[in-house]
Amino acid sequence: MEPIKVGLLGMGTVGTGVLRIVEGHQDDLQKQVGSPIRIEKVLVQNKDKSRRYAVEADRLTENAWDIVNDPAINIVVEVMGGIEPAKTYMLAALENGKHIVTANKDLMALHGAEILAKAAEKNCDVFYEASVAGGIPIIRTLIEGFSSDRITKIMGIVNGTTNYILTKMSQEGASYADVLKEAQDLGYAESDPTSDVEGLDAARKMAILGTLGFHTSLGLGDVQVKGISQVSKEDILYGKRLGYEVKLLGIAERQDDMISVGVQPTMVKTTHPLAAVGGVFNAVYVYGEAVGETMFYGPGAGEMPTATSVVADLVAVVKNLKLGVNGRKMFVPYKEKKLKTAEQIASKYFVRLHVQDKAGVLAKITQVFAECDVSLESVVQQPNKSIAEAEIVIVTHDASLASMNRVLAEFEALEVIQTIKSVYRVEG
Amino acid sequence: MEPIKVGLLGMGTVGTGVLRIVEGHQDDLQKQVGSPIRIEKVLVQNKDKSRRYAVEADRLTENAWDIVNDPAINIVVEVMGGIEPAKTYMLAALENGKHIVTANKDLMALHGAEILAKAAEKNCDVFYEASVAGGIPIIRTLIEGFSSDRITKIMGIVNGTTNYILTKMSQEGASYADVLKEAQDLGYAESDPTSDVEGLDAARKMAILGTLGFHTSLGLGDVQVKGISQVSKEDILYGKRLGYEVKLLGIAERQDDMISVGVQPTMVKTTHPLAAVGGVFNAVYVYGEAVGETMFYGPGAGEMPTATSVVADLVAVVKNLKLGVNGRKMFVPYKEKKLKTAEQIASKYFVRLHVQDKAGVLAKITQVFAECDVSLESVVQQPNKSIAEAEIVIVTHDASLASMNRVLAEFEALEVIQTIKSVYRVEG
Repeated sequence: MEPIKVGLLGMGTVGTGVLRIVEGHQDDLQKQVGSPIRIEKVLVQNKDKSRRYAVEADRLTENAWDIVNDPAINIVVEVMGGIEPAKTYMLAALENGKHIVTANKDLMALHGAEILAKAAEKNCDVFYEASVAGGIPIIRTLIEGFSSDRITKIMGIVNGTTNYILTKMSQEGASYADVLKEAQDLGYAESDPTSDVEGLDAARKMAILGTLGFHTSLGLGDVQVKGISQVSKEDILYGKRLGYEVKLLGIAERQDDMISVGVQPTMVKTTHPLAAVGGVFNAVYVYGEAVGETMFYGPGAGEMPTATSVVADLVAVVKNLKLGVNGRKMFVPYKEKKLKTAEQIASKYFVRLHVQDKAGVLAKITQVFAECDVSLESVVQQPNKSIAEAEIVIVTHDASLASMNRVLAEFEALEVIQTIKSVYRVEG
Repeated sequence: MEPIKVGLLGMGTVGTGVLRIVEGHQDDLQKQVGSPIRIEKVLVQNKDKSRRYAVEADRLTENAWDIVNDPAINIVVEVMGGIEPAKTYMLAALENGKHIVTANKDLMALHGAEILAKAAEKNCDVFYEASVAGGIPIIRTLIEGFSSDRITKIMGIVNGTTNYILTKMSQEGASYADVLKEAQDLGYAESDPTSDVEGLDAARKMAILGTLGFHTSLGLGDVQVKGISQVSKEDILYGKRLGYEVKLLGIAERQDDMISVGVQPTMVKTTHPLAAVGGVFNAVYVYGEAVGETMFYGPGAGEMPTATSVVADLVAVVKNLKLGVNGRKMFVPYKEKKLKTAEQIASKYFVRLHVQDKAGVLAKITQVFAECDVSLESVVQQPNKSIAEAEIVIVTHDASLASMNRVLAEFEALEVIQTIKSVYRVEG
């Protein structure tokens, strides 16, 4: 039987996993789709380099156009990452009528609309399950599993590096800098960790999830981003005392037609299922009007988990190919994008302050909250021996971001406050 | 535009939810599928009964054949439950070329193969996402999300009633009988709770999940079943002390080509994600060779969660209808069924014994384990003031079921053992 021919752009970690699965699980895949699936050509940077997974020399190429322009190739799997030249290759492959499977979150978050428009024009599939939360099939869950529901909230731990760092800080009482160093030594964090620790990687994934969940086109610029580099072990300790774990959460919310998407270190109630998600694991919590609370948990990265999602997409493309329906079941956003203002974004907040240790301080602070219309859930004040000041930790009730910003601006001007040590969103 | 016409068999809890979602989310559904979806006729037992959700009298019928034989109806949604007459209606609807969406786990577990064969013959879709774990899209996750992987283990908390009872027993130290009574009063348990508490409901769902995960045809008779009616508060207490929660787990396992499926009360390590799944929630843990550990969590029952899955299936059928590919992407088991023998099924066990309080007892007991080739992980012996005997709790290392059965047979004959209080499988 004629095999389905696949070109693989990239043979790094994920690309190697794709080869392992397609070739190792060939019998099972063939039973499901009715034809052999053959990885015909593989783009590599250097054909002569020795590799963990052996591929015959005549299948390797250093020239992407050997794949993109090969009329025998039906499907291009893009796992090289980055914006360019991946985008150029992908658009050219679509122009040539090839279907695409990609794990490229950067590209889909920044140029997804352009790529999907080209795919629609050419009746081609573009599947990108692996771009968010590695081995967790969250994209098909949002598109198909919850097609009937109206999603109101998506909260995700979608970056394994930062979750590893925060879990270690929480378990060991260690500092951010020490744990980051350790994560780098173990290969869990890049030598330049900026994209992970500053929340950009998570923001790209949340733009994709928000787009799918709310049927509108969200870009990276629509996501408010704050990373974990300012999270201190003291914050984690105070959080624990009040029953919270600090997690880098992506939160996409909708009320009526108004949405907001942000990524920020968040105090998550220990009773919430996301609080228990530790180490490099990812989890996406989805709240739908009809279904209520659901959560999807699994490995967020790594060779084999990510390749599982890539090859599941490949199977879906091949099934569509056999049925002649490629490009016909694409996700199309149909709602106008309406972003909430700072007046409309509401949540609880955790605020830690160092203040002068004298009478009347707490009264002044609580008065600022009252004037800004922010009511308080709990207040803990205690002397801090190490700093010769007092420390106050406050958890508010739901307040608008605008009100909280007014509170913080007032605090800057309030003489009794020495330092605003930290401000966290609170969930759960 | 011509609406897609749906007949609804049953207007109980789930049927009412289906009406609410199809009619309440009509705009969103239409945007996704390109046509209105209209519930044309609804089968009820008594047209004159007053209902929580109003349906015009001319859409109600007391005669299922008005739906099954109506040539204008494209899709039949079966939410009446039970084997007959649901099976007769479903087969007749398929014979008439209608596609089926069902939430009927009993029917799919017992007669799924026959129904799917008829569907294949008629090029019709039969979708049944709602039959397992209510609002969790676990069936599409196994069929599509993990199509590329080889699943080795599926563990499910797939019955909300028993999970509610066990959670309450654990939290409150209450007895099975008291909590069952309370669950019945709250409507979480039926007045005849047998199907839930004896594990039959969970067994049906595990037959379906095992069939999907291992690509073979598993029937209810292939599932070893033990319910929770013998779980005592003492077992739960001893479990907690050793770091376990008692859960009614469905476990489907594969090693090479050999599989086993069982449902039994299980001691789950508190660090395992399933241990934290409380109340009426469901969760399915899936282990794949490539993806590793994943877990899917959500509401296992209820009007709106279950209806979410039914209507998501309805959307999928309508999309297939528009593409002309119904019945073409069906799941077909392709592997021979090979069930493990008791010699091949291995797990850890928790055993609690009441024994004579005298010298040499523990030596005799541990000798039986040794003779049966079962090694021990931990042994706790303590006097039990309330029974004037000693109590011994043993956790084994991995042992075959056959070996454990030999141990228990020897124990029956051993004079120093007064009672074998309980035996649990151990996971996590």
